[in-house]
Amino acid sequence: MAEIFSFKVLATDGKARRGLVSMPRGEIRTPAFMPVGTGGTVKAMYMDQVRGVGADIILGNTYHLMLRPGAERVARLGGLHEFARWPHPILTDSGGFQVMSLAALRKISEEGVRFQSHIDGHAEFLSPERAMEIQRLLGSDIVMAFDECPRADRPPAEIEASMQRSMRWAERSRTAFDAGEHHAERSALFGIQQGALDERLRAQSAEALQAIGFDGYAIGGLAVGEGQAAMFATLDFAPGQLPADRPRYLMGVGKPDDLVGAVLRGVDMFDCVLPTRSGRNGQAFTWSGPLNMRNARHAEDGAPMDARCTCAVCATYSRAYLHHLTKAGEMLGAVLLTEHNLSFYQQLMAAMRAAIEAGRMERFAADFRADYGRPPE
Amino acid sequence: MAEIFSFKVLATDGKARRGLVSMPRGEIRTPAFMPVGTGGTVKAMYMDQVRGVGADIILGNTYHLMLRPGAERVARLGGLHEFARWPHPILTDSGGFQVMSLAALRKISEEGVRFQSHIDGHAEFLSPERAMEIQRLLGSDIVMAFDECPRADRPPAEIEASMQRSMRWAERSRTAFDAGEHHAERSALFGIQQGALDERLRAQSAEALQAIGFDGYAIGGLAVGEGQAAMFATLDFAPGQLPADRPRYLMGVGKPDDLVGAVLRGVDMFDCVLPTRSGRNGQAFTWSGPLNMRNARHAEDGAPMDARCTCAVCATYSRAYLHHLTKAGEMLGAVLLTEHNLSFYQQLMAAMRAAIEAGRMERFAADFRADYGRPPE
Repeated sequence: MAEIFSFKVLATDGKARRGLVSMPRGEIRTPAFMPVGTGGTVKAMYMDQVRGVGADIILGNTYHLMLRPGAERVARLGGLHEFARWPHPILTDSGGFQVMSLAALRKISEEGVRFQSHIDGHAEFLSPERAMEIQRLLGSDIVMAFDECPRADRPPAEIEASMQRSMRWAERSRTAFDAGEHHAERSALFGIQQGALDERLRAQSAEALQAIGFDGYAIGGLAVGEGQAAMFATLDFAPGQLPADRPRYLMGVGKPDDLVGAVLRGVDMFDCVLPTRSGRNGQAFTWSGPLNMRNARHAEDGAPMDARCTCAVCATYSRAYLHHLTKAGEMLGAVLLTEHNLSFYQQLMAAMRAAIEAGRMERFAADFRADYGRPPE
Repeated sequence: MAEIFSFKVLATDGKARRGLVSMPRGEIRTPAFMPVGTGGTVKAMYMDQVRGVGADIILGNTYHLMLRPGAERVARLGGLHEFARWPHPILTDSGGFQVMSLAALRKISEEGVRFQSHIDGHAEFLSPERAMEIQRLLGSDIVMAFDECPRADRPPAEIEASMQRSMRWAERSRTAFDAGEHHAERSALFGIQQGALDERLRAQSAEALQAIGFDGYAIGGLAVGEGQAAMFATLDFAPGQLPADRPRYLMGVGKPDDLVGAVLRGVDMFDCVLPTRSGRNGQAFTWSGPLNMRNARHAEDGAPMDARCTCAVCATYSRAYLHHLTKAGEMLGAVLLTEHNLSFYQQLMAAMRAAIEAGRMERFAADFRADYGRPPE
């Protein structure tokens, strides 16, 4: 395990944890939400804005960056931090999930995955070793093991076989990462628990990962269509199967109410395209629930999107103006809604960190659900 | 004429003029370039950025705003300045040009123009009186008379008849504007010279406008496909036909070299979609000529787009990164190129203002052409 990576639990409240990750490029306050910077940009945002709303770390996608502009090219240009002008921590996924969801003609073997680029049909290959190499070339601070992410509704035998292969790939990822010399000395490696919704498989996966040893542990294979109730049922046991002294990262989650429910269940880190993608689609998240800014009821409303939001967009612009921009397809509409959504997500994480510190996370969650308009879990 | 509007010529150098417009909402340093904020947004930009790169005034389009969100709606929301959060001067065009270039099924009569919205086919009507009313509802600082803008290649008789109708419409615009009470007391009205490339018609038009009397005079009917040589030939006489003590505004122009040539010929104000539209299409303007950032030669170039440019984009990002963003269709690419282009245009105007003050505008223009004049990629 890289000595360079430390995680301290500063406070607990029920299963919820308030923590701090320390790395050479900066600290990460947990529970943390990581904006997704798929192809070297958090879509529609300046990096100064991403930092300004309170993000300690962003996520980059191995799959997208290997295809365009290419990992070797990014390395020649000084690495992803230099290329995209984000000097703070970056976590990169391993490409496993995107290969399953985006690539064409993929063929999985024990060695790895052969697939065609969704951009130009070019033949590509990913394996634990290549995924580690790509993340090293990008200069990632937190590297994810290469895994397979099957849909939760596959037959049980297939889920189990896939989980076991992911554990063999996790071991190969560890070996390849450790062979990465300088990169291994200044970055961290996270393993990814699989096993879909099955408590026994999740326990086996957690044991296998701990036997290998990682700096942090992700919960993979959720938020793939199983629904919030099934996800929360799995999170009732999955985080507790992972080491208490290491950060737990729930991959690809989620909606604001997903985050609150997962923090209550002991999750420390999150990433999701939702605040950015929704911002480009006219949807704004608020403390009173999501708003569709294309809705005609906003057309002459001079109020801000969310009177409780502290972001620059809510301080400056009316719903009427944002409605006009989104209706007219103006780029500024996508930009402003993305800025608001990213800020709202960071405000939500900060509120949860404060609630855990104050020992009132359950109360915060109940108030949040009441305002946000979701039925109690 | 509104007392509220003053124009002072601070320095001249040949035909080039360095001036200052003073209005209640702010001063406009001339020669001035006005970024185009078609539908209540300078596309892809925050208003703080537009101001930050040095714009004193922006342009809004009557045609676009009357269709969406509607002039009456903007008025109910406090006017265009409040709606779009731009407290500085705004010039609005009268819709005449866009009706000719964008609307469907237009029918021109002495009364005005009936047409269908290009957005939803809705039947609409513009006349001198309605154009003045719309610009009053928007709260425009500089209002443009309603005119007809025929293509320069129409038969001479048609050009002459159209110009004469535009002069009758200019008089009706003046009357309707002056009837606008409070708005007329705090805003200015510009007339628009027509007459295509014909010196005699342009002189007649200039005389007709001066008989009516305006705060400033625009040169309309150029940059409609006639080419730079024909435009410059017309600008060799047209500005001199207009009053020396009033600002001269060349509508819809243009490329950086167009601006330099027009300033040399005595033009004070410009607007054009080129820096914003080009930015969204991967084109960057530099002191060494335009760059197509999609070109593969930039793919591993760590240099800024323009080493002489003082904008934040050139201070921060490599050509390689901007190439990646534009190739990948990332919104940030459009945003950064727009920011750079708007800044470059303002840097060019500032350099021309300084050159005129120093009595070296001819030399500046020669140096500019030498550096800029590389063949396009």
